[in-house]
Amino acid sequence: MNLHRKAAVTGIGETAYSKASGMTDRQLQLQAVERAIADAGIDRHEIDGIMPSAHGQGFTCEGFSEHLGLKQVNFSATVHFGGANGLTSMHTAALAVASGAARHVVVVAGRNGSSGARISGRPQLVQANFEATREFESPFGANVPMHFYGLMAQRYMHLHGATSEQFGMVAVTERAHAALNDNALMRKPMTLDDHQTSKFVIEPLHLFDCCIESDGAAAYIVSAADAARDSRNKPAWILGLAEGHPDSPTSLATRPDMLRTGVGIAAPRAFGIAGVDPSDLVGAMLYDPFTFLVLMQLEALGYCKPGEAGPFVESGGIALDGALPTNTHGGLLSQAHSTAGINHICEAVRQVRGTAGKAQIARRGPIVVTGNGDFGDGAVAILSAD
Amino acid sequence: MNLHRKAAVTGIGETAYSKASGMTDRQLQLQAVERAIADAGIDRHEIDGIMPSAHGQGFTCEGFSEHLGLKQVNFSATVHFGGANGLTSMHTAALAVASGAARHVVVVAGRNGSSGARISGRPQLVQANFEATREFESPFGANVPMHFYGLMAQRYMHLHGATSEQFGMVAVTERAHAALNDNALMRKPMTLDDHQTSKFVIEPLHLFDCCIESDGAAAYIVSAADAARDSRNKPAWILGLAEGHPDSPTSLATRPDMLRTGVGIAAPRAFGIAGVDPSDLVGAMLYDPFTFLVLMQLEALGYCKPGEAGPFVESGGIALDGALPTNTHGGLLSQAHSTAGINHICEAVRQVRGTAGKAQIARRGPIVVTGNGDFGDGAVAILSAD
Repeated sequence: MNLHRKAAVTGIGETAYSKASGMTDRQLQLQAVERAIADAGIDRHEIDGIMPSAHGQGFTCEGFSEHLGLKQVNFSATVHFGGANGLTSMHTAALAVASGAARHVVVVAGRNGSSGARISGRPQLVQANFEATREFESPFGANVPMHFYGLMAQRYMHLHGATSEQFGMVAVTERAHAALNDNALMRKPMTLDDHQTSKFVIEPLHLFDCCIESDGAAAYIVSAADAARDSRNKPAWILGLAEGHPDSPTSLATRPDMLRTGVGIAAPRAFGIAGVDPSDLVGAMLYDPFTFLVLMQLEALGYCKPGEAGPFVESGGIALDGALPTNTHGGLLSQAHSTAGINHICEAVRQVRGTAGKAQIARRGPIVVTGNGDFGDGAVAILSAD
Repeated sequence: MNLHRKAAVTGIGETAYSKASGMTDRQLQLQAVERAIADAGIDRHEIDGIMPSAHGQGFTCEGFSEHLGLKQVNFSATVHFGGANGLTSMHTAALAVASGAARHVVVVAGRNGSSGARISGRPQLVQANFEATREFESPFGANVPMHFYGLMAQRYMHLHGATSEQFGMVAVTERAHAALNDNALMRKPMTLDDHQTSKFVIEPLHLFDCCIESDGAAAYIVSAADAARDSRNKPAWILGLAEGHPDSPTSLATRPDMLRTGVGIAAPRAFGIAGVDPSDLVGAMLYDPFTFLVLMQLEALGYCKPGEAGPFVESGGIALDGALPTNTHGGLLSQAHSTAGINHICEAVRQVRGTAGKAQIARRGPIVVTGNGDFGDGAVAILSAD
């Protein structure tokens, strides 16, 4: 069997996103879980699977179980792929409910990514995990994500002819979407000139090419098909999903093709399971720690041909009234970054339900969600109401 | 679908077990994985799923992928249940291969549990995870596993009429089994008198009621059914498996029934999926950090009635020539403790294959394996050649 329509997302929950929440990582995560349970309209005791994120100082499964007072937990696992945790966890959660190991699995991530420990200030995060990085990249001063992603952006521009202005249009478009979202952190309008004149953080990445650092948590509930059909919400069916990992995942220096990342590897399998062609998509929630990754993923997913994502974005293709409205919540760039991309999943579910408010996409149909972590571990899911 | 015969263990690998390996956790884990791949007789590039243990300072999935030179990894997750990691991971691995998400998933755990950081000296391990423990147990001096398990042993004796001599017969029997195993750490014969006269570590647990601390790692490969049928080894089919978690998993003080742990909760589901009755079992590999847990599990699995496990063990029931040969490798008590119980899985697979040497169980049929972690998270699997 594969995972086509064997599971659906039936509940979503988010905390407020802020620069300083005044809450611990655990309080944030617990609040997101409580809100996802309330949204799903189920009794908390129906939750029988828990997938805590490796993000932040969260609870273990046991801690959630204790704090929620759950009597019967049948499944737990954790995914350790940095920003890809949120969506890659959906893979494992869907396996659990599709096989009957559990009926309702909650996935959660969140932390004080602004007021607490910041990724940009923690080179030890990368160094602790990755021996190849320590050996081949750190001696040259590459220690935090933007060092590595700066290299990838440089190469992407070289090979695909992309421009900084095209990167900027991703930032400008997502900021415009954030203005429609009461729970987006950065809502002040941005112009392309604002982007172009913002300082370089690391060439070719300007400040506004980099996502924000935020406080906040998000959670979602993956339910078995029969439970989803009884849900009080319109289920967001998982039509297909897959994860992918680069050849040489821990070091750009040793990777045969720096730009061959997990999203591109997973995409054909995910679309194959879904029975959906990229051209069928009506919206996209693409993991966007840096602007250029949106362009790269539009091509890696097969939606744009190589080199065509830049012009597509410049022509308004990812705007709310474009051909593929993208990150209609504001994304990591303008909504929030601290949820390992679960905010993207929450927005995809709202779009599928038709409850995205001012950011609602006019056309109905399949929505793609991506996750991207560390140096390119990734996952792709296609969600739909039908 | 459920997991009945959808997956099998096709490869196993163990390092030498020792008090001081002179290797890092990562070297140990990598060696165990290499040996499991060699045992399975597959090309390393066929491994497309990696489940690193949360035990020890091991690699992430990316680290294993990098060191093994894997080109295409399609699945990864990690289980965080202390000693239950090893077997609970089989649950997730089986889900992955049964659904086609991956074809061969390697699970690994291991560390320098003797020469490196010892559990018995790390109260912060428990305290970091468990807020309820910090609040309700730590103030009274309960900080490391044997403090909590001592309480459980006391209560088990009170309710089930078990005796210290019955506990001792578990230690004596497993030591006799270890003497048959060249890779067991403690092989010197033990008498019941040795057990009874060993010092109390914490009443009612004598020194010889407690497992050893060891260096070493172990790994196994879970393969999809079609791949298993092509395996060069006799596949150890997963007839059934399930995980279970106590109501109030982080604190004995807040748990309605201290002795109602995950193994007892998972057992009916695991046997149900397997289509096996506990009386059909021909052998058992029971997670045994402390002797009394073997008695408790014989009852929790439904093999012995409440209160009857003690007399069963005293009458030789778990010896190699008994009705249910148990921990024929020597178990955590006399072989090794540092693998999150994967050594139990390796022994179960040898028994299923008929390659357990001097410790081979005469009868052929289903073997049960259990895992038990933290304060009672657990898993139960039933493996068989047919």
